[in-house]
Amino acid sequence: MTAPHLLGLPHHDGSRLYVDGRQFALGDVVEVRLRVPRGFGETGVLLRVSRDGDPLKLPARLQREDAHERWYAVTMPVDNPVVSYRWLLRRGEDYVWLTNRGLFARDVSDVGDFRVTVFPDAPDWAADAVGYQIFPDRFARSAAADARPAPEWAVPADWDDEPAKEGDAAVRQFFGGDLDGIAARLDYLQDLGVNLLYLTPFFPARSTHRYDASTFARVDPALGGDAALARLADAVHARGMHLIGDLTTNHTGDRHEWFQAALADRNSVEGGFYYWAQEAPVDFARWQRSQAEQWGAEVETEVDGVPFDYVSWLGVASLPKLNWGSPELWGRMVTGPESVMGRFLRPPFGLDGWRIDVAHMTGRYAADDYYADVARAARATVDSVGGLLVGEHFYDLYNDQLGDGWQSVMNYQGFIKPLWSWLTRPGTDLRFADLPLPIPRRSAVDVVATMRDFDGSVPWALYSRQWNMLGSHDTARIATITGDPRLVEVGAAWLFTYPGIPAVFAGDEGGALGTNGEHARTSMPWDQIGTGGGSRWDASAFARYRSLIALRRGSGALREGGLRWAVVAADATAYLRETADETVLVVLARAPWEGARLPGWLLAAGERPELLYGGSAAGTPELSFDGEHLVVSGDGPAVGVWRLTGGRGLG
Amino acid sequence: MTAPHLLGLPHHDGSRLYVDGRQFALGDVVEVRLRVPRGFGETGVLLRVSRDGDPLKLPARLQREDAHERWYAVTMPVDNPVVSYRWLLRRGEDYVWLTNRGLFARDVSDVGDFRVTVFPDAPDWAADAVGYQIFPDRFARSAAADARPAPEWAVPADWDDEPAKEGDAAVRQFFGGDLDGIAARLDYLQDLGVNLLYLTPFFPARSTHRYDASTFARVDPALGGDAALARLADAVHARGMHLIGDLTTNHTGDRHEWFQAALADRNSVEGGFYYWAQEAPVDFARWQRSQAEQWGAEVETEVDGVPFDYVSWLGVASLPKLNWGSPELWGRMVTGPESVMGRFLRPPFGLDGWRIDVAHMTGRYAADDYYADVARAARATVDSVGGLLVGEHFYDLYNDQLGDGWQSVMNYQGFIKPLWSWLTRPGTDLRFADLPLPIPRRSAVDVVATMRDFDGSVPWALYSRQWNMLGSHDTARIATITGDPRLVEVGAAWLFTYPGIPAVFAGDEGGALGTNGEHARTSMPWDQIGTGGGSRWDASAFARYRSLIALRRGSGALREGGLRWAVVAADATAYLRETADETVLVVLARAPWEGARLPGWLLAAGERPELLYGGSAAGTPELSFDGEHLVVSGDGPAVGVWRLTGGRGLG
Repeated sequence: MTAPHLLGLPHHDGSRLYVDGRQFALGDVVEVRLRVPRGFGETGVLLRVSRDGDPLKLPARLQREDAHERWYAVTMPVDNPVVSYRWLLRRGEDYVWLTNRGLFARDVSDVGDFRVTVFPDAPDWAADAVGYQIFPDRFARSAAADARPAPEWAVPADWDDEPAKEGDAAVRQFFGGDLDGIAARLDYLQDLGVNLLYLTPFFPARSTHRYDASTFARVDPALGGDAALARLADAVHARGMHLIGDLTTNHTGDRHEWFQAALADRNSVEGGFYYWAQEAPVDFARWQRSQAEQWGAEVETEVDGVPFDYVSWLGVASLPKLNWGSPELWGRMVTGPESVMGRFLRPPFGLDGWRIDVAHMTGRYAADDYYADVARAARATVDSVGGLLVGEHFYDLYNDQLGDGWQSVMNYQGFIKPLWSWLTRPGTDLRFADLPLPIPRRSAVDVVATMRDFDGSVPWALYSRQWNMLGSHDTARIATITGDPRLVEVGAAWLFTYPGIPAVFAGDEGGALGTNGEHARTSMPWDQIGTGGGSRWDASAFARYRSLIALRRGSGALREGGLRWAVVAADATAYLRETADETVLVVLARAPWEGARLPGWLLAAGERPELLYGGSAAGTPELSFDGEHLVVSGDGPAVGVWRLTGGRGLG
Repeated sequence: MTAPHLLGLPHHDGSRLYVDGRQFALGDVVEVRLRVPRGFGETGVLLRVSRDGDPLKLPARLQREDAHERWYAVTMPVDNPVVSYRWLLRRGEDYVWLTNRGLFARDVSDVGDFRVTVFPDAPDWAADAVGYQIFPDRFARSAAADARPAPEWAVPADWDDEPAKEGDAAVRQFFGGDLDGIAARLDYLQDLGVNLLYLTPFFPARSTHRYDASTFARVDPALGGDAALARLADAVHARGMHLIGDLTTNHTGDRHEWFQAALADRNSVEGGFYYWAQEAPVDFARWQRSQAEQWGAEVETEVDGVPFDYVSWLGVASLPKLNWGSPELWGRMVTGPESVMGRFLRPPFGLDGWRIDVAHMTGRYAADDYYADVARAARATVDSVGGLLVGEHFYDLYNDQLGDGWQSVMNYQGFIKPLWSWLTRPGTDLRFADLPLPIPRRSAVDVVATMRDFDGSVPWALYSRQWNMLGSHDTARIATITGDPRLVEVGAAWLFTYPGIPAVFAGDEGGALGTNGEHARTSMPWDQIGTGGGSRWDASAFARYRSLIALRRGSGALREGGLRWAVVAADATAYLRETADETVLVVLARAPWEGARLPGWLLAAGERPELLYGGSAAGTPELSFDGEHLVVSGDGPAVGVWRLTGGRGLG
């Protein structure tokens, strides 16, 4: 028995095969299309499309048909900023709904409907972006760094030291990487194939992660200061690459000049930038206790022996939370060219955008919820320079990401976590960052269902720009999670062939290890890189990453095509990425499986599949044509990516 | 083989067994509890609860256990206006989530999480309410009505005429019922057992439905005018019953004094109350066309031969849409005691609340979306007198009903439509109001999944006050949908034993027929009522409704208990309604089925189930104890409601 395929089901997504355009204005009409394989048995098709709160039900017209499928089309009005729609297919006396979460033979609520919006699209260059996350302290040291004294709070480490896993050591362990160090390694990055660098914070702080900024006015001198950032931005731009920074809109450090001014005078303007316990609508001590209770930790109630009385990120005293109820804060932080956010987008820096730390917590405290307004204000500032705005979001996106705020979100729930659940070692004691529990190992059936559940609410314009990774500075490393280079390759193949902006946490491409976020902040072993590898560098992993990035950058279908699930089985998944003139088949297996037989007509008569990528650590499945079907062998762990000659689109 | 039961699964809902209280304030802590049947195999329990955008993960403590189940408890903070939560149960190396949509062995998005809020609860009397919807033109005529001339627009009908199904006739057919006619029939209503009367609009208009009000300043003289409404309200209140009206916040009639003033001078204050085509951000002619396209209807573009150029409800010229961008409109319509909404809540009328027509469309047009603000303003006005606010909502509630606006919603998607899909005649050509398609017949598995899908997003405080019906003035009649009095009884038993405010559309209790909303607006055949029935009145149906209403009013568990699904099969469903001191089992079958065996320990040792209600048109299943199980027989169509002695709660 082979695994059943899903290519007999109707399909629609937000890609160009199905939707004319991806950037709309209020009052537009847009043709949307549905493909229905022959044999599905539909007797009529409607589009249900929201308008002014009461959906229209518009009959679809049969646009064209051939021996294999029918295409239906509807001219859909875009009469509200967010338009939700879904397809209804009649079958006999019943009907089914097709939504962005799949096909339902019962009535379903609207949360999984397809969506288009009128919000500005992410910049064009984001469509071809391959991201690379750099934790500046750990990437590379310039010669100037060697001459610089370590900051007074720092505990200097040797470059090859293993990062501490927890506690004060993890925060202060100072490797001394700097921005000129990054600029000196752009050849390496260009060779790897990435073109969008994301730097975790570069502001002065009292930790190596620098999320506790002591000012937003300048770049940390320990990183080379403002001039080094300007040099790096110039060098990056000279190569046609892009560079984004990292900003905390949720909090500052407790040594931040704003917070110091606030402590000195709570009636100052800056006093209004924070939340004070005595003004809290909730019991502050209880608030603190329940933050600690969840991790079984001690309640942090004092700083240097003095009780602290302000609201902070997860109760951590060094990260006082910003109060967006202060009108002054907006202009200081996000609104306009003179704000922190705006200033670094202009010369001499000219950043191409921002990643927003704990975006999902920003502006939310007790009865306050400025989240959406902060996101929109940040978006306006970034849009004014055609930049990219990426939000960190550890939980659910439905209400938080329609497209008027973040253009992209670090897709922990819709990509990283489900992928880990598929590839993790059974019985691991490692944790994902959102739960105090080991990661369970689950089937691809569950994993894909979870991906569709989370991503099903996200408009295609965002889904296709989601910030997908295999891990970050806040998680363990994929090499440690899987414990198997073959499974790393399977995961990387998923990442680089999937919709979204694929991004690498620096070091993953060389097999870096790490059991949690702190431990994963490894330095780059430059002495081993380019010399065939070593104990800290897997040169064959690098070669695979480079090939997979090249694969993506060489295929329009992989970058911008629609996505049709072809097979979802426990140990394997396969999908098609399709544009009007290209169809690519991706097969991913974590273990041997039963294989599958796909419709042979995916291949034009007389054509043969072109293998674009086959596993080198993992195996490569066989793809053969038996006269009627495309037969996928059940090898695993395995990766296979083929171009199937001839697109199936309308072009 | 019997159908599997679901009572081996963990359970939580928002009722008192599981949540201490239902009305919370910011900063409260509340104990929430989870019951887990023995044998489920959990090795640990966490509560995930949203706070400030980043959920807490709080360990649950084992509170008590016995031979059959374990109860876990967590003290949960209510630190935001809306708090979402879900349970995690560890099992071996994996975990499952319990949300308001059910149990998931994979990660799921937050839309189905349990929710509590800080918004004021509906009035206490709503907990015991049984609603009754009256279409004033069709309920009863007083002697005064006989003496009154019909309005000039009306086409007088004989009281026993069949309502027209469509077109102008359906709008103008005037039966001449009035408010004093209702007041004269309160004995009848009290005998039936209802205690909350809902009147469709009583404002002057040019139709018998009166949703096209020509003024909100007074009660239609054709209904007896202001004095008659005051008399009716007094009479209703004197019996301890309640009375709510019906208001169109989405539109007025085109003969409304506001609209006439607007037509006369578009620069007048009232000119700002409406949307004019020439100012529209979307192409008005196209907007009109797509309204018509969905029903295959002609585009209505003229009134009395003159093109109309204003936005209206679904493009109908006589219902110009209100523009809530006008600051003046708020005070006129909903805000404060002098608004339309406020004025009728005070003497001499003293209405107990309002039902809001097409609430889901209110304030929504193009880029405008005043929906939530209108709902909150209306809520403030109704809360100020402790009244009830019910929204009409034909579609999805997730974003539209968290509890700060409507306290209750006409639950078309979460109750009426799924119930119809279960009980409809196979092959019917009748339609539900939201789709131009016949109603499919579906299994209870699908129907219950749909109910949980829609209601799963709704906080318990609202779910337990949802306005549930078997049909309304906008749908066909349940007797016509089922074509079988046995199935009407099954549906009515579901209605009156389910959480929410059960409500009857006048006439349903006597078996009234109707193929669509217009046709369902039948007059009450008083000459047959109370005389043993006749061609238009089924006295046995009335007896069943009266018994079912008495059943509900006599059981705290049916009114306020939690709901645990016990069996969900194609042709039958069973659930428990539970309070600390009462457990009621409800079994509903549309056809013969396989029966079920439930855990025998639901019954205390030596006790016997007490049959509270058995089918009279439908059969009654047998419920027996075989020494180990409670055995439910597979009769059908059948209804059985039993009190199982001894609650299983914490009391």
